[in-house]
Amino acid sequence: MNEFELIAHLTKSLPANDSVVAGAGDDCAVLDLGVPDKLILFKTDAVVEGVHFMRETPPEKIGRKALARCLSDLAAMAGTPTAALVTMALPEKFEVEFVSGIYSGLNALAEKYGVAVVGGETTTNPGRMLISIALLGIVPRGKQILRSGAKVGDAIFVTGELGGSLAGRHLEFEPRLTEARWLAEHFHVHAMMDLSDGLAGDLRHLTAASQVGAVLLKSALPVSRAAKLRARENSRAQPAALAALTDGEDFELLFTVASPDAVKLLDAWKKKFSGLKLSCIGKIVAGEEIHLRDQHGSHQLNAHGYVHFA
Amino acid sequence: MNEFELIAHLTKSLPANDSVVAGAGDDCAVLDLGVPDKLILFKTDAVVEGVHFMRETPPEKIGRKALARCLSDLAAMAGTPTAALVTMALPEKFEVEFVSGIYSGLNALAEKYGVAVVGGETTTNPGRMLISIALLGIVPRGKQILRSGAKVGDAIFVTGELGGSLAGRHLEFEPRLTEARWLAEHFHVHAMMDLSDGLAGDLRHLTAASQVGAVLLKSALPVSRAAKLRARENSRAQPAALAALTDGEDFELLFTVASPDAVKLLDAWKKKFSGLKLSCIGKIVAGEEIHLRDQHGSHQLNAHGYVHFA
Repeated sequence: MNEFELIAHLTKSLPANDSVVAGAGDDCAVLDLGVPDKLILFKTDAVVEGVHFMRETPPEKIGRKALARCLSDLAAMAGTPTAALVTMALPEKFEVEFVSGIYSGLNALAEKYGVAVVGGETTTNPGRMLISIALLGIVPRGKQILRSGAKVGDAIFVTGELGGSLAGRHLEFEPRLTEARWLAEHFHVHAMMDLSDGLAGDLRHLTAASQVGAVLLKSALPVSRAAKLRARENSRAQPAALAALTDGEDFELLFTVASPDAVKLLDAWKKKFSGLKLSCIGKIVAGEEIHLRDQHGSHQLNAHGYVHFA
Repeated sequence: MNEFELIAHLTKSLPANDSVVAGAGDDCAVLDLGVPDKLILFKTDAVVEGVHFMRETPPEKIGRKALARCLSDLAAMAGTPTAALVTMALPEKFEVEFVSGIYSGLNALAEKYGVAVVGGETTTNPGRMLISIALLGIVPRGKQILRSGAKVGDAIFVTGELGGSLAGRHLEFEPRLTEARWLAEHFHVHAMMDLSDGLAGDLRHLTAASQVGAVLLKSALPVSRAAKLRARENSRAQPAALAALTDGEDFELLFTVASPDAVKLLDAWKKKFSGLKLSCIGKIVAGEEIHLRDQHGSHQLNAHGYVHFA
């Protein structure tokens, strides 16, 4: 049983109440707590030593990444973050300067996006460090963007470039909060999520939630310089396009809009965010399969994010 | 540097914004997100294998305890819980039945108190299991009870019995949500918190936040049967009264009201909650020291929760 199967098993029937607008299965939970014009977004995310960062990672970057991952999930709902709690599980021996460094990195990013850090706790986790962030935010009522709204015929977009994030970007990425809010304000975005596990796997979560399929164009994938460099320098590395599909930790936005809006969106985006690429990478189709088209034809992407290149 | 010194160091200057009513340092953070008549309570708490539960602890009890600890913190603010997120950090090898059992225990308690479980995540924590709960709740605006409101002359109360929790109660305690809300509705409670680290240590957090001191009466301490039993059966165990002061994991309410309200409160409590003891254990005094009075005189309680019996 992999992570996604386990989560599906555990979240089959969870306790609910009247406050729940969207529960498990999207980037954030959406709650109605009675704010007249707003809904509440609620999210947790953890980073673990040896998995999401290394012991030698500078502490400021660890703290920054821990919060940035959560902010990216809030961006995926077109939300605005409000307050965070920090849970630090520390090994029995640790340097106070290291822990302070984690907070410095985290606090700097919190300041940048107006997030209050309102407490948390420290506890013991013998052997390794784990940092979990709980984040609250708001979204104008009715303006939250779920994964489940994609429609047949939609154009699929992705921000930035994909692949090779582990070369460094995973510690320095910018959560797309500003871009997501602008999208929600100016366009009718049907479905959106952030890319954390790799486009091939993440797109499947979006299409499954929307009960649709998708076709991607290989030549349209925005492959990062880091992924290209690695593919060129190391003949045993996977091809750059495959890296863009499966590396993960991209933390870019994946979203769909009706096809007639696509050109208008690309034009407006270029004017507004000239420093950040926006790529139309394919379209939503009927069915439930995801295909990748290249000069040789169409190949099915499998459920685990890996593509069988013919 | 102990846990409390570390937290004090880390929380000296945290990013804030206009939503923060009370940040780090109380049982929950209190936020104003614009609900006309309510404030939002926000809390996280983690349990770690080998620290808060053992590998042989039944999984249902682990899940129950993880949520109950958070609910106890919400009770300490006189709040009502709304929604929880569950973060499970799992070792590389785990039994799906064990993880399902954790959710069963957690979900059953969530149902009992009307809490929606709206998602969370699973991640890897090689070597041991860690479960962190993030909890949201509400409290009528202006009715939240902080640690900082105790006044000189107040009577100090504690619910239930203290000490010996590790004999079993720490896995089965009932968060005092109902009792706390009743208190807030019917009496002017000046300060309140839940007991997690032991009365001697926790009371110090309350008196420090309120800038007052306290005198406890040893004979008034409600010592649990489990603590008495252990003291009687094992000559090397600490005296039962010391266990009640320092064992921790009691998850009872500690609160203060003006002295003239004390008798009325005890009478009303007996009628309302006949199955749960309420004890007046001392009073708030000027200064910053905490003393324990017994037949031999008055002894100072030290900062780490241990009392030097003369």
